[in-house]
Amino acid sequence: MKKLPLEKVFLYLERGPVVLVVTNYGGKNNIMTITWTGVKDFDAQFFFTTGNWNYSYKALLKNKECIVALPAADLAKKAVQIGSCSGADTDKFSKFALTPLKAEKVSAPLIKECFINIECKVIDYVKKHNLFVLQGIAAHIDEKKKEKRLFHAIGDGTFVIDGAKLNFRKIMKDKLPFGV
Amino acid sequence: MKKLPLEKVFLYLERGPVVLVVTNYGGKNNIMTITWTGVKDFDAQFFFTTGNWNYSYKALLKNKECIVALPAADLAKKAVQIGSCSGADTDKFSKFALTPLKAEKVSAPLIKECFINIECKVIDYVKKHNLFVLQGIAAHIDEKKKEKRLFHAIGDGTFVIDGAKLNFRKIMKDKLPFGV
Repeated sequence: MKKLPLEKVFLYLERGPVVLVVTNYGGKNNIMTITWTGVKDFDAQFFFTTGNWNYSYKALLKNKECIVALPAADLAKKAVQIGSCSGADTDKFSKFALTPLKAEKVSAPLIKECFINIECKVIDYVKKHNLFVLQGIAAHIDEKKKEKRLFHAIGDGTFVIDGAKLNFRKIMKDKLPFGV
Repeated sequence: MKKLPLEKVFLYLERGPVVLVVTNYGGKNNIMTITWTGVKDFDAQFFFTTGNWNYSYKALLKNKECIVALPAADLAKKAVQIGSCSGADTDKFSKFALTPLKAEKVSAPLIKECFINIECKVIDYVKKHNLFVLQGIAAHIDEKKKEKRLFHAIGDGTFVIDGAKLNFRKIMKDKLPFGV
């Protein structure tokens, strides 16, 4: 995996893909699947909604850090399966044959099989809205991966993969951040 | 347009599409394009990030209501153009040949050409994070529309349209809300 500059992280989150959130708590790794995400700033800040109905909730509140890993479409079925069982009784890395890799700045591991891995600090939790606000502090990209399309949850058990591309860079040229 | 039940609104937002936010303030309609959105609850609650750099910001804070309209891929270019000029000096309905339709519960108009229109109350503004929290209070769907694919911003001036579908309803059957 190569370093992904933090100012490019939003380019993978803005489209609203399914993400995997990896935590390490009490010496145990866990993964949850999250589809309710949003970008907050160009500067690798973003948020997602979860609450105490998720086993990873406590780990996020206590450790205040996680990996947000972006599976490409080749991992779609695994991502759904990961979201359909609980870390309370499942070692998800083992059950789904995923490879944990040591992260640079947080205790939770990267997922080797994912296209993008973002090391994050939880910088706020807005309890009223079950909203975790995250700051990416390091990021990694597997550019050699053949499948780079991300995928999106509809919410009814179906999903869509990134499809046809449209290019409106000319219209937006004055709006794009430097270097993007 | 037909009524869209509020408990089905998240099915169009969860995937992270580009949305148009319509406001009415000082007797003037305006539209802004927003790509930083997220779902907060199954109950038609969601959020988006914006701030005082957007002309619509004041209207949202003062009127506490808006329409969130979802353009399908046939309106992608217009949505980008709408986001590349300001309501301060542009009547966007007129400039982009869009048809305002009277909404049921809010003063801002629906956009006839959009696939989905959600009438919303602003139920909170988290200033620290530039986050508007919305509650859908009525919604409409144009089921006769031929183009139903939504589209997503990458963030660099390119976009992706909803592509190939995946069906994991069987795996998720115990997780799906009733009726979805």
